Amino acid sequence: MSSEKAEAGTGKPPIRDALVAAAYELFPERGYEQTTVDDIVALAGVGRRSFFRYFPSKEDVVFPDHERCLADMTAFLADGSDDDDPVRRVCDAARLVLRMYAENPAFSVQRYRLTKQVPGLRAYELSVVWRYERALAEYLRRRFAARRDGALQADVIAAAVVAAHNNALRSWLRSDGQGDAGATVGHALDYVQSAFGGVPVPPAVEQPEDVVVVVSRRGAPLWRVVQEIETTLGRG
Amino acid sequence: MSSEKAEAGTGKPPIRDALVAAAYELFPERGYEQTTVDDIVALAGVGRRSFFRYFPSKEDVVFPDHERCLADMTAFLADGSDDDDPVRRVCDAARLVLRMYAENPAFSVQRYRLTKQVPGLRAYELSVVWRYERALAEYLRRRFAARRDGALQADVIAAAVVAAHNNALRSWLRSDGQGDAGATVGHALDYVQSAFGGVPVPPAVEQPEDVVVVVSRRGAPLWRVVQEIETTLGRG
Repeated sequence: MSSEKAEAGTGKPPIRDALVAAAYELFPERGYEQTTVDDIVALAGVGRRSFFRYFPSKEDVVFPDHERCLADMTAFLADGSDDDDPVRRVCDAARLVLRMYAENPAFSVQRYRLTKQVPGLRAYELSVVWRYERALAEYLRRRFAARRDGALQADVIAAAVVAAHNNALRSWLRSDGQGDAGATVGHALDYVQSAFGGVPVPPAVEQPEDVVVVVSRRGAPLWRVVQEIETTLGRG
Repeated sequence: MSSEKAEAGTGKPPIRDALVAAAYELFPERGYEQTTVDDIVALAGVGRRSFFRYFPSKEDVVFPDHERCLADMTAFLADGSDDDDPVRRVCDAARLVLRMYAENPAFSVQRYRLTKQVPGLRAYELSVVWRYERALAEYLRRRFAARRDGALQADVIAAAVVAAHNNALRSWLRSDGQGDAGATVGHALDYVQSAFGGVPVPPAVEQPEDVVVVVSRRGAPLWRVVQEIETTLGRG
């Protein structure tokens, strides 16, 4: 255990981590609704006021990392330069969020199952997702400030990024956190980048039976067009 | 007042409408949180049980038309044929939702202001928006069932449609319901259609100096390619 992760000098896990661990031990046993804050603090061996020092409500202990992750993502976007492709940057920001889930597959899968079962947690999650989406949209709105329809484009692209991220994340969670979460999300974000630009089209690999495209002005003389084809085909 | 809109034979507005009207008279006066269901039924002149016959909770009276609108939208999607362009169809479904807001600008603007002020209503609205988005995504998932990445594309496009709709709707609401809501939303949805296809590329108008594109298999004999060019140029 690293020194930052332990209460100074005691070698014990920090109170916050102990509260999360206790909560996630109790939720599957007793059910989320039946588990009280008193149950959690009793198991964690701390006082009730400690709980509320770290978490405003019982719902917040279910999503202990989102505030930090949102702050990290916002800082990442703020650190960007004007040379960054804006769509690429928000996709990279989404990859950052994915990492939070991928770092701890077992915990992420457990939370996913819990959230599916408890309507109140679904509502909480929607509000968290909304905050991520707004942070991405605010960044894009700044980058698109000079564009006509900049705010519209920002909102639409932010929503598309979040939807792609969540589609891939959920399919990874449904597979019990097996497989490469980063690759799954990367593939999903590629789709968004291809729809809204920001990803260069990869150069085509030449195949024996590939297709030759000749573009020519209609006014060009036929011999010039044929010459061009011959050159392209390597027959000239 | 039309006969369908009145309680049979009494000439009075139906109870449901009276409850909504009473609620929206009281919310601005007393504030949403301070207004009780008892206040609403007293003003509407009906019993407390009537309220809960129409609305599961006080939040539901704020959004009285969403259940019907969601049902209408889902029916519209189900009524489509396989010939419909899927992206166009979900955009048309979003236009249907817009109509609910545009039919009653004053009411829509009042609700928008109320929702901005009350965090609980914001959360409720997010869950409603989520249900619209899922209905669009489910339709697209069916239509894209044969596609690789069909579910991913469905989720992303549904989110983009909802974001475009909401961006345009909110800008119309912020302008106090002035202007043409349909045109504003139409413009926003055009952006989504242009990103994800579904809008036919307008046929190019032939210019004297336009471009001729010939696509040919590399393996094709040269005479065949030349013949093709001649035909395209109208010289064959």
